Amino acid sequence: MQQYFIKGAPENPVTITDKDTIKHMFNVMRLTEDDEVVLVFDDGIKRLAKVLDASEHSFELVEEWLDDVELPVHVTIASGFPKGDKLDLVTQKATELGASDIWAFPADWSVVKWDGKKLAKKEEKLAKIALGAAEQSKRNRVPEVKLFEKKADFLEHLVDFDKIFIAYEESAKEGEMAVLARELKDIQKGAKILFVFGPEGGISPKEVEALEAAGALKCGLGPRIMRTETAPLYALSAVSFATELWQS
Amino acid sequence: MQQYFIKGAPENPVTITDKDTIKHMFNVMRLTEDDEVVLVFDDGIKRLAKVLDASEHSFELVEEWLDDVELPVHVTIASGFPKGDKLDLVTQKATELGASDIWAFPADWSVVKWDGKKLAKKEEKLAKIALGAAEQSKRNRVPEVKLFEKKADFLEHLVDFDKIFIAYEESAKEGEMAVLARELKDIQKGAKILFVFGPEGGISPKEVEALEAAGALKCGLGPRIMRTETAPLYALSAVSFATELWQS
Repeated sequence: MQQYFIKGAPENPVTITDKDTIKHMFNVMRLTEDDEVVLVFDDGIKRLAKVLDASEHSFELVEEWLDDVELPVHVTIASGFPKGDKLDLVTQKATELGASDIWAFPADWSVVKWDGKKLAKKEEKLAKIALGAAEQSKRNRVPEVKLFEKKADFLEHLVDFDKIFIAYEESAKEGEMAVLARELKDIQKGAKILFVFGPEGGISPKEVEALEAAGALKCGLGPRIMRTETAPLYALSAVSFATELWQS
Repeated sequence: MQQYFIKGAPENPVTITDKDTIKHMFNVMRLTEDDEVVLVFDDGIKRLAKVLDASEHSFELVEEWLDDVELPVHVTIASGFPKGDKLDLVTQKATELGASDIWAFPADWSVVKWDGKKLAKKEEKLAKIALGAAEQSKRNRVPEVKLFEKKADFLEHLVDFDKIFIAYEESAKEGEMAVLARELKDIQKGAKILFVFGPEGGISPKEVEALEAAGALKCGLGPRIMRTETAPLYALSAVSFATELWQS
């Protein structure tokens, strides 16, 4: 069943005001009286809803659903700005794979330089991709997308996390494969995890130092060299496997 | 260091004959006498090689390297033909993530119909993508790409595998999360694993039946609904995490 995220707290009945959502509901899906959809408000609860009046874009909330498909831990992925449209793919796939937050920052070895205006536009585009992917993968929440203009602003957030991992190519090359599994084994439900990924050129020694000073651990994600946009997908899959499948 | 796959058994010295490889070596990378690259022959061993004569495209093999980055198990992924160019993405990412073989077949609910000629062209394109990704991710072997024209031909291969998993959306919806972890826990080194993925519309009940008759197990890959091209990436990451990281 089609799912929509609706900003705000649940109201019953509810009148949809977001233009894009209205367009999709009544022009694309051509919903009419009594058609059913799932609405997800800011509380993350899925509610079965029935069209009351298609011309007024109003719905009656029929029942709450119990299912919660969010990861048992909060995972933020932070990528050094990669080239081109790679963040589009990362955003879509990371959303399907359960990320809580999708961040990117200007890394020392990022080739692209995005100024404030460009960043705002890019962030808006990525937020739309995350919204669409979250609806399609039936998430309970939409990952927040944040593009930092300054690396310092990103680094200021490090204190907010319980665990920080640096996906480090050199660790992979040296055969380091124990850290991530060890740390995920005993991770607490609700823990806030940050994974940091370098851009194409990797993460600089200075960045590693700054992250390690904040308690970050370097970890290998298997012995193969992955592209910058592939590593976050591995990390999220590993977290799901360790915390959802392995512990089920 | 740049890595190239060279068909055949190792010879010393070796003269490169593949046109695309020669072009990349001497036109793109502009290799000259004494420049070093890594050559990987059919035996999967990485060898440091030095240009002997750039005009003759000949190399001296200097030393063998020990590193083997292949997964400890053989993983074949088989996707029901998906729409558009999704197999391009699957092939590139599955190669980075360690797949042994990348297969696709005409599933009951595949929308696209590809005839023999179209299939051969597509297979060639995907083989090139796999080759490039295998070189970039420093694999010891290039995954084999195979597009089946008939589903029956694909099904005939089921007997070759030690474990077959069906990535089943209904299992995910029902909260099935134990099978994959349980089965990967005790998997033998060298085991041959097949993961089967439906196209956009999913895998048909008849297909599930045929696969189960061959011993396949339905498994959920976490509770979120993934797109058809995302599920193989989750599966490969999970296998790597379980067999390389967890058991290291």
